[in-house]
Amino acid sequence: MVVDFSLYLSETSEKVDVELERRLFSTEIPKDLERAMAHLVFPGGKRLRPVLLIAACEAAGGTQGDAIRAAAAVEFLHTYSLIHDDLPCMDNDSVRRGRPTVHIKFGEALAVLAGDALQALAFETIGGATESWAQGAVSDLALAGGGRNLVGGQADDLAMGDSDAPSAGLAGRIQSVHGRKTAALFGASASIGARCALASSQDRTRLERFGRHLGLAFQIGDDCLDRDKKESCTILRVRDERSARQLAGEHLRLAAEEITGFGSSGEALRGFIRFVAEISAK
Amino acid sequence: MVVDFSLYLSETSEKVDVELERRLFSTEIPKDLERAMAHLVFPGGKRLRPVLLIAACEAAGGTQGDAIRAAAAVEFLHTYSLIHDDLPCMDNDSVRRGRPTVHIKFGEALAVLAGDALQALAFETIGGATESWAQGAVSDLALAGGGRNLVGGQADDLAMGDSDAPSAGLAGRIQSVHGRKTAALFGASASIGARCALASSQDRTRLERFGRHLGLAFQIGDDCLDRDKKESCTILRVRDERSARQLAGEHLRLAAEEITGFGSSGEALRGFIRFVAEISAK
Repeated sequence: MVVDFSLYLSETSEKVDVELERRLFSTEIPKDLERAMAHLVFPGGKRLRPVLLIAACEAAGGTQGDAIRAAAAVEFLHTYSLIHDDLPCMDNDSVRRGRPTVHIKFGEALAVLAGDALQALAFETIGGATESWAQGAVSDLALAGGGRNLVGGQADDLAMGDSDAPSAGLAGRIQSVHGRKTAALFGASASIGARCALASSQDRTRLERFGRHLGLAFQIGDDCLDRDKKESCTILRVRDERSARQLAGEHLRLAAEEITGFGSSGEALRGFIRFVAEISAK
Repeated sequence: MVVDFSLYLSETSEKVDVELERRLFSTEIPKDLERAMAHLVFPGGKRLRPVLLIAACEAAGGTQGDAIRAAAAVEFLHTYSLIHDDLPCMDNDSVRRGRPTVHIKFGEALAVLAGDALQALAFETIGGATESWAQGAVSDLALAGGGRNLVGGQADDLAMGDSDAPSAGLAGRIQSVHGRKTAALFGASASIGARCALASSQDRTRLERFGRHLGLAFQIGDDCLDRDKKESCTILRVRDERSARQLAGEHLRLAAEEITGFGSSGEALRGFIRFVAEISAK
């Protein structure tokens, strides 16, 4: 029974950190590339995706140990996408989490290469598992991380003008980008966690949907936190904050519905719902 | 029996093209991203890596059909690496194969994203196979395409100054870059082809070594063809052309040794040796 979710999050993310370190540092990688790869991995963010993966595995009857390797893979993939998103030709951000971005510290070439190598490392990490779930997990990760989702969402995000008036069309485009850039990887994380527990396909589908709704609510909360930044792809272009928070609440309600059948093993997932609800309330 | 290798290469690469088209074009990818991804895939180069993969599969007793999916994956991975290598922050090339490079035609952001999506597509393509070889193939591809090989080789290539005098140290560094940037993916292609034929691990090791030697000889031939370009990582910095060609010949001899046991099923691989020998003789 997870009484204190923030304790669960910090304890589990520490285990994720150990696994990330173990998999990232290899004497066979050129040192400058390795440093550029590690820069945004350590210290990391909240490790929401890998911890969600682990919590989904536990909900489906697995252990943290069953999921730790796949959790590291998802975090490597997420980190690569942040490094590339920050590049001068993309969002041109020079600071992330209070530190210089990878291209500011190591130059553009090493930032591109660090992202490329982290993507390969994600697939090496997840594909190298000998368990029967590895193959499905590679497919989940590649689908969520490819042109149909993460990369396509970023392409449409960049192409989005910031002068369009609020409209149903604009709302749909913003929702579509959030679905592909954020929710798809949350959904894949939960799905892969279910695979690590050798869950039934019905349970896996429920957990995947849980992850998607959680991701959409998280993105809305993030947009509200970033309300003072000038961003073209934010829900606040088509809704006021109150209405955005209502939508986040609706996604969290739908997420909760998906996991009613998991009983006490789903407590950590319920903690995620409360955690994201708090973010959206800020 | 492959009498005419150039016919084998052209017929097999046509089949590769059909598979690449089938896997690349999906209505779910944003159209501008899809066009950027396709730009360097069609028309492609000689398709040496995917055809090598198919020839290795045939040598080990498999059919072209057993290998076609994995062949497409290797070509997607190779193409992504070319797109990123051409970027302004890397080699800053504006022309490749007589056409504008992806960032010249579509802009830097889409070039980065097209490469990212092609890498994901490579793993989606190879990981989505239901055959038992898929998992090992994902590992081979991730290892050859990651920080220890392809990406690390490119990082060291970029870091290489062009003022060092010829020395054993410089020769070793150039050889190391070629081993990781070129030979590793040739070796992985042959290894994956062997996997597609469910080859013994002994046969797979032989084919992997064959691919590596072939790749090293190919790279030397390529350096000789590019003798007039100012490049920092070329064998011609530490050998004259005659000595470089001797080294290429030595690698081709070692490659031939690896496949003596394959009999008539190895004819296409022997065609590869003749083909690369011709390149190095130009």
